[in-house]
Amino acid sequence: MINKLVEKIRKTNAPIVVGLDPMLKYVPEHIQKKAYGEFGETLEGAGEAIWQYNKEIVDHIYDLVPAVKPQIAMYEQFGIPGLMAFKKTIDYCKEKDLVVIGDIKRGDIGSTSEAYAVGHLGKVQVGSKSYYGFDEDFATVNPYLGSDNVKPFMKVCKEENKGLFILVKTSNPSSGEIQDRLVRTGTKAGSLASEGGISFGERPLYELVGEQVAQWGAEHMGREYSYIGAVVGATYPEMGKILRSIMPKAYILVPGYGAQGGKGADLVHFFNEDGLGAIVNSSRGIIAAYQQEKYASFGAGDFGGASRAAVLDMKADIQAALNAR
Amino acid sequence: MINKLVEKIRKTNAPIVVGLDPMLKYVPEHIQKKAYGEFGETLEGAGEAIWQYNKEIVDHIYDLVPAVKPQIAMYEQFGIPGLMAFKKTIDYCKEKDLVVIGDIKRGDIGSTSEAYAVGHLGKVQVGSKSYYGFDEDFATVNPYLGSDNVKPFMKVCKEENKGLFILVKTSNPSSGEIQDRLVRTGTKAGSLASEGGISFGERPLYELVGEQVAQWGAEHMGREYSYIGAVVGATYPEMGKILRSIMPKAYILVPGYGAQGGKGADLVHFFNEDGLGAIVNSSRGIIAAYQQEKYASFGAGDFGGASRAAVLDMKADIQAALNAR
Repeated sequence: MINKLVEKIRKTNAPIVVGLDPMLKYVPEHIQKKAYGEFGETLEGAGEAIWQYNKEIVDHIYDLVPAVKPQIAMYEQFGIPGLMAFKKTIDYCKEKDLVVIGDIKRGDIGSTSEAYAVGHLGKVQVGSKSYYGFDEDFATVNPYLGSDNVKPFMKVCKEENKGLFILVKTSNPSSGEIQDRLVRTGTKAGSLASEGGISFGERPLYELVGEQVAQWGAEHMGREYSYIGAVVGATYPEMGKILRSIMPKAYILVPGYGAQGGKGADLVHFFNEDGLGAIVNSSRGIIAAYQQEKYASFGAGDFGGASRAAVLDMKADIQAALNAR
Repeated sequence: MINKLVEKIRKTNAPIVVGLDPMLKYVPEHIQKKAYGEFGETLEGAGEAIWQYNKEIVDHIYDLVPAVKPQIAMYEQFGIPGLMAFKKTIDYCKEKDLVVIGDIKRGDIGSTSEAYAVGHLGKVQVGSKSYYGFDEDFATVNPYLGSDNVKPFMKVCKEENKGLFILVKTSNPSSGEIQDRLVRTGTKAGSLASEGGISFGERPLYELVGEQVAQWGAEHMGREYSYIGAVVGATYPEMGKILRSIMPKAYILVPGYGAQGGKGADLVHFFNEDGLGAIVNSSRGIIAAYQQEKYASFGAGDFGGASRAAVLDMKADIQAALNAR
């Protein structure tokens, strides 16, 4: 799947993933009205509204970008009907040949992690038959529980030709509280650090997690890049530069562009010399573009057109930054 | 809700939470057969089987224990039908007046975390109406993204009179890879450590997370205990002892007893002198008790009876350990 992602990035010339993180306040009134007319102001109505909203956005952007990233929390908040909209969205995006990155950030102990891996990337056995539960192409995972969490995901990825993005340095303001902690290296304290390459000293935790990702990545290579990637926020470009060099073969999923404050010029550090190696997420900036002054002329009636224009602008912004380096 | 949990622990004299983590290999053949007869060997069939299995266990144990802890991964692996069984299980347990701890281990950035908090503990707004999505009483959360993740959960808990258990030191073998890292304290590196109480030096990360939990806990107190609790694995009793003293007012949810290797004698360190402050989870050891030699005489036909016997034995084991200290 990492090979498909790289090919599609080359073909579209857009290292962009559109975050399908629908909040009801983004969904135009005419769509909400229609959905509530059919299902009432219920969880089912909300599910229908976000599904119709997603569908129209996808119809307007699927030829421009390689991938989408639905954030499961935005669906899970509406309970079962919300998760049905999540599943419908995944299936529809795959019909449109988009690579689907499930932003699920799951993390648990071995056997439990296996259940998440099976449910989101693999097949679960029921009697003599087996079924895909949600069937994303990639998933994001949380490393706080250590390799016990990640290994079952890697196993399923190998079997199913899928991939992961492991949280290394997240885009949010408080990400440093744990991730930036200076930790002692080269001790017996854990196996995260590869024994060979590290001198005794102090380094931020995210670098050690990055090294572990690089090591796992080397064991799970696609053609040019590994199918074990990393999440590093656009809001921390200097750290991105260091992590880029620590994980040369990892695809970096970069959230935080646009609404969270990351700019095109900040992004260059996340890319390799080949112009590959990073895929930048924008959610609100694209899916709710029609609510920005810049795209207001599209109106709520053509919110899909506004999203398309925002993708084209983002593509130009990133290309200009890459050309200028 | 923490007050209700403490009251129920006093009344049942059982600081025990039953982990409702159904795997199909635990579900007796007659239940699977019946479910597949009705729905086929499908995800719906699997959902029905685990729901019927849970129901029979709950019917046999609800008067003995204060709480249950469904692990959402075990349901999520079966996609939507699995999550419908999760929801049914929560609703049924609440009917039986059990406190429900949703073991969801979610963790994300601010606005996304808010969606999880709303979906699992609070109400989501749809037009002029609002709805509970899953409606657990407590949820487990992952601290890797820092306070941005935890704060929206705390806000919803305050509004809804609910609670959290924050992962501090998990029970799995690889938990030390990140959680045991020796980190520098007393520096500007982050706000996890309270500035006052800590001298400059090195301490394991889990201690600093424990201190943060204690600080949040002090701001969110129930009658005797805080509604911001912690997860600390039974498999690390020495660390449990230290964390107990760092977080005197936090309820500690203790996984890892039984099947994962934790013993009754290991548990005493997690309790306060008042005999309160900890609630010990057992999943497989109770829900699949009939598969153990010790309870084999119950047979698959009376798997609920085996679970009841296993709860009584666990209660005696913990009480003996507490009395012996």
